[in-house]
Amino acid sequence: MTAAPRNLNMQGVLSMRGGGYYTERTQGAKLVINNALPLVKEGLKVDPKSEGVLRVADFGCADGGTSQEMWSNAFSYLRASGDKRQIAITYTDLASNDFSQLFRSMQGLAGDPSIAYQKNLEGVFVYGCGTGFHYQLFPEGTLDFGFSATAMHYLSEKPCEITTHCHSASAGEAEHAQFAAQAKADWERILLARARELKPGGRFVCLNFGIDEEGRYLGNTGGQHMFDIFDRLWARLRDAGKITKDEYDRATFVQYYRTQAEFAAPLLDETSAVHKAGLRLVDSFSTYTRCPYEQHFAEANGAMDPRTFAKTLIPTMRSWSETVFSSALSDRDPAEAAALVDEFFQSYEDLVAEAPAGHAMDYVHIVVVMEKVA
Amino acid sequence: MTAAPRNLNMQGVLSMRGGGYYTERTQGAKLVINNALPLVKEGLKVDPKSEGVLRVADFGCADGGTSQEMWSNAFSYLRASGDKRQIAITYTDLASNDFSQLFRSMQGLAGDPSIAYQKNLEGVFVYGCGTGFHYQLFPEGTLDFGFSATAMHYLSEKPCEITTHCHSASAGEAEHAQFAAQAKADWERILLARARELKPGGRFVCLNFGIDEEGRYLGNTGGQHMFDIFDRLWARLRDAGKITKDEYDRATFVQYYRTQAEFAAPLLDETSAVHKAGLRLVDSFSTYTRCPYEQHFAEANGAMDPRTFAKTLIPTMRSWSETVFSSALSDRDPAEAAALVDEFFQSYEDLVAEAPAGHAMDYVHIVVVMEKVA
Repeated sequence: MTAAPRNLNMQGVLSMRGGGYYTERTQGAKLVINNALPLVKEGLKVDPKSEGVLRVADFGCADGGTSQEMWSNAFSYLRASGDKRQIAITYTDLASNDFSQLFRSMQGLAGDPSIAYQKNLEGVFVYGCGTGFHYQLFPEGTLDFGFSATAMHYLSEKPCEITTHCHSASAGEAEHAQFAAQAKADWERILLARARELKPGGRFVCLNFGIDEEGRYLGNTGGQHMFDIFDRLWARLRDAGKITKDEYDRATFVQYYRTQAEFAAPLLDETSAVHKAGLRLVDSFSTYTRCPYEQHFAEANGAMDPRTFAKTLIPTMRSWSETVFSSALSDRDPAEAAALVDEFFQSYEDLVAEAPAGHAMDYVHIVVVMEKVA
Repeated sequence: MTAAPRNLNMQGVLSMRGGGYYTERTQGAKLVINNALPLVKEGLKVDPKSEGVLRVADFGCADGGTSQEMWSNAFSYLRASGDKRQIAITYTDLASNDFSQLFRSMQGLAGDPSIAYQKNLEGVFVYGCGTGFHYQLFPEGTLDFGFSATAMHYLSEKPCEITTHCHSASAGEAEHAQFAAQAKADWERILLARARELKPGGRFVCLNFGIDEEGRYLGNTGGQHMFDIFDRLWARLRDAGKITKDEYDRATFVQYYRTQAEFAAPLLDETSAVHKAGLRLVDSFSTYTRCPYEQHFAEANGAMDPRTFAKTLIPTMRSWSETVFSSALSDRDPAEAAALVDEFFQSYEDLVAEAPAGHAMDYVHIVVVMEKVA
């Protein structure tokens, strides 16, 4: 177990002009995954003498876009190494996920054809599974390798509203304890399910949002504190009488950022059900990924207008946080709720445009590599 | 090989009042599948001594609704028999298919909870595959049992427009020959893919629209001829100058109804690639399923208004045929095209309402049971 943080910062130059809006908004998440390629290559146990079927899974995949290049690289490496195993990859997410878009991308019917690995490589079969990853998703001992990125900070249920903030990382003691307990139960359930699914010797590599050795986490890495700003601006709407106290409270992210110790605990405790099920810790470390939008703004060296920067930064935050605020207003007329949410994000944009220093959405991940005992 | 048709007619009384619109429209297709349960039970090789994973597939599944009760019954029977194998079922269809609805149904989040077998039974795992069934969809020799209902009459491409009719079953000789050749090539491709996927001893049960010993097929079973009426009413729009000759021609179903001999040919010909790949014919027979709407109307014995009957019959036809006519008008303004399609189906409804005798959409299926040599 490596304690020192590894800097998995962006490799190569990010062009904000190229690529689609979606790709831009998820550029940071994609970089983190691409940098995990060595761990995936190792987990696949590439060997020209191997036969049969390699069964892998991508847990909490969304539309498959952020991990597609990594899988394409991993499978291309496997084929280039003379490993001829047939590959069955199953993407998992909730039933409501857009699996059609995912299937089209892998077949080269949408997106970048150069990474449409199902079409570009021989013997790759792609499936979807619409059941949540807190459940066992594969028959016992049939999975060679599992992967999950930026997905398991979501809890299976909201233990309580956070009444003094919007995020558990800044909750008061009693409310924080309830989130921590739910996160502990969820993580053990996730690991028990993976322990049952994995073949002996099979690995599970997990890149999760978490809290690193320096106490840093997503959007809280030394400069402005993103979740504090979310909370302050949301509270301002309450204090101005625009939203109710109940609507303020209900804007609670159903997320928990675990520490490295919390991730490791059930894997190291020999009395835990997870340990007894045979899942072991191979490696764990934190990674820091600089916000591509902030970096681009910094590298522009004054040539970029702060408003333009704000207009790139806020959408990346909004893409994953908006539903928390809009669902807090679910008792209202939809148009009225939408106007309030627009006002909320506009106020954040204005804040950044007026004084851009320190605003960023840097990523902090805890990487956990696990193996089922042989 | 059994040549005599077996009457898989409706068992039990169909209540048109109960159930949702969707269920009603697909009632006939569902009955055909439910009646195939004995063939599925046999194919699953239920055995309390079996271990490991039972891998099955439902090819061309749509939203999984028409086969859900059958699978629920089959898997319940398996469990009740003491067979504890973990079950991995993969539903396949085109990438554009609504897999979300399918996943919700199996988990009991939508539809009838009594047949939500993923929730109701232990050890059942559900997956989707968004690649067409003309391709190999599973690694070599890994599938225990394949099933497909009312899907493989669709061809992988349209070989030509049918200029004198809308359906290949009534096409002129030259155009019919092009459809027959495409259907032959597609069927061989489908069977070769299944031969590769199946385990030795594994079975593939296929219920396809086809032409029976008496020359009957869907909507052409002795009374009014559905496809002839489609063609006559579509030609009437052309003759009235409402659609162009080109638009008339383009309303061509990309379908072919194979005869029993055409289904059997590559399985019986020892020189064929399919035979060489080890796929063998176990059984084949035709089934006739009376149109539930016509039966309901007949059983009402004059108590049902012909217009009411027409208003139940036409939607079941329209549900699967509408896109053929609307896409023939794709060069027009969408609203204008929709109005023409409405007029077309309205004219069919009027025909039925004025003289209901003989109108029906009886189903004719060719059932083919195949096995991979052990």
